[in-house]
Amino acid sequence: MLGSIEAGGTKIVCAVAEKENVNEIIDSITIATTTPQENLPQIIAFFGKYTLDALGVGSFGPIDVDTSSETYGYITNTPKLAWKNFNFLGKLKEALDCPIFWTTDVNIAAFGELSYGAAQKYENCIYLTVGTGIGGGVVVNGHILEGKGHPELGHIYVNQKAEDTFAGVCPYHHNCLEGLASGPAIALRTGQKGQELTEDHEVWEIEADYLAQACVSYTLSFSPEKIILGGGVMKQKQLFPLIRKHYQHLLNNYVSVGDLDEFIVPCQLQDQSGIIGGLALADTLIKE
Amino acid sequence: MLGSIEAGGTKIVCAVAEKENVNEIIDSITIATTTPQENLPQIIAFFGKYTLDALGVGSFGPIDVDTSSETYGYITNTPKLAWKNFNFLGKLKEALDCPIFWTTDVNIAAFGELSYGAAQKYENCIYLTVGTGIGGGVVVNGHILEGKGHPELGHIYVNQKAEDTFAGVCPYHHNCLEGLASGPAIALRTGQKGQELTEDHEVWEIEADYLAQACVSYTLSFSPEKIILGGGVMKQKQLFPLIRKHYQHLLNNYVSVGDLDEFIVPCQLQDQSGIIGGLALADTLIKE
Repeated sequence: MLGSIEAGGTKIVCAVAEKENVNEIIDSITIATTTPQENLPQIIAFFGKYTLDALGVGSFGPIDVDTSSETYGYITNTPKLAWKNFNFLGKLKEALDCPIFWTTDVNIAAFGELSYGAAQKYENCIYLTVGTGIGGGVVVNGHILEGKGHPELGHIYVNQKAEDTFAGVCPYHHNCLEGLASGPAIALRTGQKGQELTEDHEVWEIEADYLAQACVSYTLSFSPEKIILGGGVMKQKQLFPLIRKHYQHLLNNYVSVGDLDEFIVPCQLQDQSGIIGGLALADTLIKE
Repeated sequence: MLGSIEAGGTKIVCAVAEKENVNEIIDSITIATTTPQENLPQIIAFFGKYTLDALGVGSFGPIDVDTSSETYGYITNTPKLAWKNFNFLGKLKEALDCPIFWTTDVNIAAFGELSYGAAQKYENCIYLTVGTGIGGGVVVNGHILEGKGHPELGHIYVNQKAEDTFAGVCPYHHNCLEGLASGPAIALRTGQKGQELTEDHEVWEIEADYLAQACVSYTLSFSPEKIILGGGVMKQKQLFPLIRKHYQHLLNNYVSVGDLDEFIVPCQLQDQSGIIGGLALADTLIKE
């Protein structure tokens, strides 16, 4: 049996699937993210019902993914204080006797979309979630990209338009991408939540420009074959053609990415990109 | 014997070294980049003097690094028309009977600095050259980063300051990083070449801001352990403390990169980062 954990800041999903049908979840639980003391026994009780061959874990971050580090497997400097410096991987290893793939929540989502979703049959993709925050996962040549650390794609800088005087909402960087284009940025710019705005509200043009700039920078950095956009803000489907329009103008055919309708796309697995990605990563461990 | 080719837009360097002393060049030639018809026989004549075990090639680009592509090994859409769609790797393979590592000129420089220069003992680094153009090479976990394509780090977008009304010099993107911060941008901003300006000219502060923004984006994308800056513009040593100052402010400790004096550094191998990197890559081929 394969297991998967998608640990987000508000909820934790655990799931299992048969090795023969990696992307068919046969049992799962969703629990509210509270404290490790409460959540860890819930997680272990769930997986205790099964004999796991391997587990894929995607955690909210920042997390330590450096295998040479003393705190490898820890959630590190999170604002969720109960989880700060928590040895998540270590505690799972103590309780579960199987190989575990440890990475970020957005990396498992990228891998899920590559394995069974929008980037099937490809080897290189980026998954960007645009919601309360902005985060991204990267797959290069079929493998999750992690060096000394994991990507933090939401905090890159983009060119703020001269006429856009918005101060930005990122507590670290003010007007980085997350500061300018996250859900809270939309809300603060307009006084309304994104889903309450009309499709032709002027904020979507601004939003699309910044997201397109980021997509250009990701393209030039990682040469993906698909850029997959998910998260709450991307439920505004009118954004997709706007982002493609700005992207076309900004990239100006400097590199070839093919048909933009096929290149910048919504996630296909909906809310299951991450949890299925965890199963797919567990699957890689038993096939190594 | 190991061979290396660093093919730049103005000159091509070929070198050989013994397998036992990879970074000690025992013979080399430097030829002006003219046409493949002229340069290829020169290259082959040089290596014909030796029995090569392996060759590392770093070429100006853009080049095709996708092994599944029909034009793998080609220089593709370059403004140097004599080289456009030239099957560089194929022609080398016809003439030289040895394994060949094929990548970009900046990637071999990054690998050279990782192997024998500023990033020795590390596994993750970025090499950025700032000159007539801006280009970057990336090493992650000891391997050159290439997916479907190679990085084009010079063309990412940065946040142009509201008070900076410079239009930018990039023919594709106007005010991308290269458009705002390359050598020609400095010259057009000031009416003078960079090396003719005083160390306290105001342009260096602007230059440092944009390069620091890019370094932040690279940090958040690739989590390097060293960012190595080379190229003609970076001979202005006063830029290093300025870049570090802006970087500190812009990253705002969002991720930990350690002492900035040790993190953002000049290249150590001077003009030999690339050619030695090619030798080091050839060395990886015989050790595989």
